[in-house]
Amino acid sequence: MSTKTKSDIDIEQYLANKKKLIDGHIKKLFSSNNYIKPERLWNAVRYSVLNGGKRIRGVLCLAAFESTNKIKSENNLYIEDCLTTICSIELIHSMSLIHDDLPSMDNDDLRRGKPSCHKAFDEATAILAGDAMLSLAFELIIENTNKISNIQKLKIINILSKAFSHGLVPGQILDLAYSDKKCGLKEIEDISKLKTAALIKASVLCGGIIGLDLSSISGEDKLHTNRRILDSLENYGTKIGIAFQIIDDILDITSDTKTLGKTSGKDEKQNKSTYPLIIGIDESKKMAEKLINEAILELKDLQTENKLLSSLARFIINRIN
Amino acid sequence: MSTKTKSDIDIEQYLANKKKLIDGHIKKLFSSNNYIKPERLWNAVRYSVLNGGKRIRGVLCLAAFESTNKIKSENNLYIEDCLTTICSIELIHSMSLIHDDLPSMDNDDLRRGKPSCHKAFDEATAILAGDAMLSLAFELIIENTNKISNIQKLKIINILSKAFSHGLVPGQILDLAYSDKKCGLKEIEDISKLKTAALIKASVLCGGIIGLDLSSISGEDKLHTNRRILDSLENYGTKIGIAFQIIDDILDITSDTKTLGKTSGKDEKQNKSTYPLIIGIDESKKMAEKLINEAILELKDLQTENKLLSSLARFIINRIN
Repeated sequence: MSTKTKSDIDIEQYLANKKKLIDGHIKKLFSSNNYIKPERLWNAVRYSVLNGGKRIRGVLCLAAFESTNKIKSENNLYIEDCLTTICSIELIHSMSLIHDDLPSMDNDDLRRGKPSCHKAFDEATAILAGDAMLSLAFELIIENTNKISNIQKLKIINILSKAFSHGLVPGQILDLAYSDKKCGLKEIEDISKLKTAALIKASVLCGGIIGLDLSSISGEDKLHTNRRILDSLENYGTKIGIAFQIIDDILDITSDTKTLGKTSGKDEKQNKSTYPLIIGIDESKKMAEKLINEAILELKDLQTENKLLSSLARFIINRIN
Repeated sequence: MSTKTKSDIDIEQYLANKKKLIDGHIKKLFSSNNYIKPERLWNAVRYSVLNGGKRIRGVLCLAAFESTNKIKSENNLYIEDCLTTICSIELIHSMSLIHDDLPSMDNDDLRRGKPSCHKAFDEATAILAGDAMLSLAFELIIENTNKISNIQKLKIINILSKAFSHGLVPGQILDLAYSDKKCGLKEIEDISKLKTAALIKASVLCGGIIGLDLSSISGEDKLHTNRRILDSLENYGTKIGIAFQIIDDILDITSDTKTLGKTSGKDEKQNKSTYPLIIGIDESKKMAEKLINEAILELKDLQTENKLLSSLARFIINRIN
């Protein structure tokens, strides 16, 4: 299957390249002396954040940055700060997976094809490693960025912390409340908007915050001027985020454990309400397709490069084709 | 027993007044519409953060603020921001207690005289409520402060996040590693420095960051000028923090469960190494006394009001008299 689009962006190649760039930056950050003792803690953190994720959130952040920033060169000084922000995003994503996998929650022994953190270490270490990763995500924005302004730093911390406390966490609480219970389309939409789309939206938005020229003292004004672009990115992020969850639900049914890298068919076994369970696989596909098309329409107003973000949106749906 | 000091500060009255002020501010913050749904989550958060703690960390932050700020009036506009910072500190402290109490860690059913969070709700809710509280602590500094500068906000977030990821969490990891194992004085000092003193030190430091006049654009320079004051506050905070842990260890042996508000004699039952276990109660008392005296000496150089901070240091040791 080719995922090349009309615009000739080889999105699989793009994803592979950027994943490599992101993994390299995360590895470099964690090679610092700050993350040696206690060994057990930082080993669990490294194990989890370097455990071969696809870095979809990170790539979306980078693509939003590249799509909004005028300086296209590889020497762009903001790229390092963008990569650090991506490290924060991936820390938050990974820690939410560690906690989701715990016995008192989804009780999953497998994550990305390897033992989940509480299996590789123990429950206490898994909880505490997740805790440290969350805090670290905010610290990195302050300590490991160089070019972005204080206003940008505060915006990014705020966007990410809200995506977590008012997105991922409420989403997981609702998800747990509805497991073992049938729920309707409205409920499943609420859950995916919180649990999945919130951080994807935040990732796109952070890329825009760094990419738009907001580094001067009058940053607050410029943020205002760029409100329309940021709004479009936000809507785009939410729509592809929900579509991403729909596709994930479909893949849980149609893929095997090895391909998924996590236990497949688990949703059904846990009696979890999913899109295909409620509206069927075909309707779910249609819904995801519609969301992706809407997301791409959002980009029309951007007045900036948007082929990249369109191709990434298309890629999400192509995962099931 | 009277805790009045030579300087006639009625420290018990001061603590009671400030605790009331802090509790009121936390209650007000959590009455916002942001913390309604999902009910289970925010009820667990409210249950934990409003569960009648002594607010020692908050009071120390307020005292450091009052001791470094020249405007003594009750109308001081920074006081609201200081109270919001205290709310963040208390959120971090409370969430660390929720996670410490979990079955996979200290497995404690009782906290501040009431069922611990995972007993009052369930384990998953307790883990997730703690997660949300940590993230919320940083959000509040950004969203619920008005007067402090962006530099001050970033400094406070950085101080608190580091106290957590490089203090509380490593401290709890070491504490768990040494439970069921005898450890020496060096190890127990490392643990109390991380697990207890890090957040107490951070609280004092945050009070200083807000109290010193650092709100102008040249804040970074002023931070530099005030480095000596902040260093003194930091040393003071670390010393009283370790003393606080020593006294806590002594009280765990000498008090009953009702007075403590948590299960007493638990350290011994869990074979935890504590100061009195390693060096005896008398030597522990002497060590705490020495640390408090040293902490008070640190204040001599402050060139600001320090009676308040001296009295609070004395109060910590008076808890066992």
